[in-house]
Amino acid sequence: MPTDRLEAFADGIFAFAATLLILNLSVSAGALAPQLKDIWPSYVAYAVSFVTIGIIWINHHTVMHQIGRVDRLFLMLNVLFLMFIAFIPFPTRLLAQNVTLANHHADAQAAALLYGIALTSTAVLFNALWRYAAVGSRLLRTDADARVVQGINRSYTAGPFIYLAATLVALWNAELSAALYALIAIFYIFEASLFGR
Amino acid sequence: MPTDRLEAFADGIFAFAATLLILNLSVSAGALAPQLKDIWPSYVAYAVSFVTIGIIWINHHTVMHQIGRVDRLFLMLNVLFLMFIAFIPFPTRLLAQNVTLANHHADAQAAALLYGIALTSTAVLFNALWRYAAVGSRLLRTDADARVVQGINRSYTAGPFIYLAATLVALWNAELSAALYALIAIFYIFEASLFGR
Amino acid sequence: MPTDRLEAFADGIFAFAATLLILNLSVSAGALAPQLKDIWPSYVAYAVSFVTIGIIWINHHTVMHQIGRVDRLFLMLNVLFLMFIAFIPFPTRLLAQNVTLANHHADAQAAALLYGIALTSTAVLFNALWRYAAVGSRLLRTDADARVVQGINRSYTAGPFIYLAATLVALWNAELSAALYALIAIFYIFEASLFGR
Amino acid sequence: MPTDRLEAFADGIFAFAATLLILNLSVSAGALAPQLKDIWPSYVAYAVSFVTIGIIWINHHTVMHQIGRVDRLFLMLNVLFLMFIAFIPFPTRLLAQNVTLANHHADAQAAALLYGIALTSTAVLFNALWRYAAVGSRLLRTDADARVVQGINRSYTAGPFIYLAATLVALWNAELSAALYALIAIFYIFEASLFGR
Repeated sequence: MPTDRLEAFADGIFAFAATLLILNLSVSAGALAPQLKDIWPSYVAYAVSFVTIGIIWINHHTVMHQIGRVDRLFLMLNVLFLMFIAFIPFPTRLLAQNVTLANHHADAQAAALLYGIALTSTAVLFNALWRYAAVGSRLLRTDADARVVQGINRSYTAGPFIYLAATLVALWNAELSAALYALIAIFYIFEASLFGR
Repeated sequence: MPTDRLEAFADGIFAFAATLLILNLSVSAGALAPQLKDIWPSYVAYAVSFVTIGIIWINHHTVMHQIGRVDRLFLMLNVLFLMFIAFIPFPTRLLAQNVTLANHHADAQAAALLYGIALTSTAVLFNALWRYAAVGSRLLRTDADARVVQGINRSYTAGPFIYLAATLVALWNAELSAALYALIAIFYIFEASLFGR
Repeated sequence: MPTDRLEAFADGIFAFAATLLILNLSVSAGALAPQLKDIWPSYVAYAVSFVTIGIIWINHHTVMHQIGRVDRLFLMLNVLFLMFIAFIPFPTRLLAQNVTLANHHADAQAAALLYGIALTSTAVLFNALWRYAAVGSRLLRTDADARVVQGINRSYTAGPFIYLAATLVALWNAELSAALYALIAIFYIFEASLFGR
Repeated sequence: MPTDRLEAFADGIFAFAATLLILNLSVSAGALAPQLKDIWPSYVAYAVSFVTIGIIWINHHTVMHQIGRVDRLFLMLNVLFLMFIAFIPFPTRLLAQNVTLANHHADAQAAALLYGIALTSTAVLFNALWRYAAVGSRLLRTDADARVVQGINRSYTAGPFIYLAATLVALWNAELSAALYALIAIFYIFEASLFGR
């Protein structure tokens, strides 16, 4: 089977999950200006999750560029992977609403853990689908670029461990964990800039 | 008419219906951690419906791969079929919210029945559009793979009956019916794994 | 400019507007089963609007199949046309919620009028973009099918008048107006079936 | 890397951000007809934001038509640009709800400022991604049309300054600022009509 419809379905879910993040921003009745300042964690969470989904989309793009055909198991792995992508708006909202409530530490921790579990699972499934396609060049294009394939192998292996570490930090300090999620996104933006040139 | 725009429209609705499922997850004010545990039926319902939509998408992919052109009636059958796909988030939310309320058995039953009716109708329409295309090779590609066409004929015929059976179980036991919907999704994941290799 | 990105953008809005209709269905606390029966106008409104959007999508598909290139004004006409497509979920919800409240006739009338204005405007803009493309074969494919072009000219001219008539009926009887919107959708389903064979 | 998947992802976000605007329209319990008149700022805001997103989509279309390949930094710039596109529904709702509340001038001002900041940032990022692609013809097609490239350079440079000016007007008069956003959209509609012929 060709790869085009998988890309259309995946692009739809990436784009929609990213756009749905905006529904997490809201204000209540009352003076608007102070509220627009007070919800700054929601802006940060929106930006971090949008950029994170965007980076995963770019990586999916890079991976699919090396893949020449798909089979049913690869499609199913993609469905499971996309299930976690579409899940991201939920913990994003929880994290934005709870991370600054210093007096409810348990809530911030629960939100940071759920966010981290979602991103770690996403990274694990992304590796799973890539390994399935790449092992023995099972689904790779016949003219796949060996150097790019090696680069993907190297760079994506770290993902689950980086997110797992940031998740575990939440057991000790939820605010630091949230800051790490933001730093990871910023790191990937700069990595893309350098690798992109 | 060519098939590409039908695929784009269908992929859009599959992707949005699956992503909209995340809006079914919500928590109220109050301690977050216990709530995140208590809403486990919502996670299960999210996963089951996402995977179910994903599997139907894969099957639609398989079917369209054998189809060479579309006519207006086939497009209309697809619109009706997609109408049921886009309906799935509604009974999914109802089932997640009601299936564990043992003291309101009637609510769990109503939710399980509606969920089953939606999936049974989806399966009936999926068969209808495939039969319309396949009878006398009306819309099939001239180089359609006879073995794949036979395989589709065989495997999709069972769908409506499997979902109807799980729906009828809800008349007797709503929780068992819900468990069957989950089991059917798990079964299809494994079936895809084996068929995919 | 080629037509592919307009089709992707349009298909996205058609698919998303249709899928968003499901958010119009909701139940409150209280026994579920009677509520699922009482909201039958919401099911009908969901089906009528979904099928109506689907039929307009099929017609857009038919039109674009005759068009070989686009210019900026044609793109702008499409943006305005899609603005009305994306508007449809709002009056759909209002109509479903108000059409059966016999004791608030003014509300049912307002909802039926807004629904009709939305569909009439959609039909007007659809004609406008087709005329712009077709006059003097401005944007048609060089191998456009003259019979199909004539058929489009003939069949789409009636659209705005049919919807305007159903809208004006709301000034007299909102329920009848709502029934006419449903009948128009059913008529188009059968018309597609016959024309499709 | 080819440009097709960036276009699919971007078209998805443009289409969803535009369609999500409809969720900003709502009415409360009570007589419907007067409410449907009272929310006229919501209709205007819907139309202005939909058309604005549509125009930016047309411009993105024009730009991508001159681009032959993408690299990772260009993809990242697009993700950041689309992050602001998907943000637009939030200040649109705030502006519609607050612009006519003459007795809460501070709220109207805050909403007009946020709307302006969102559009100004969008225009800045749109210029950034175009400059990155165009400088030294880094990512342009080998057969890029020099006249179109010059035209894009000229016409898009003004965007950030026009939106910045309308934003700054909000510091003095929020209603005038809102009117300017509408006028800019109307201006671009006419500009497209003339340029399109």
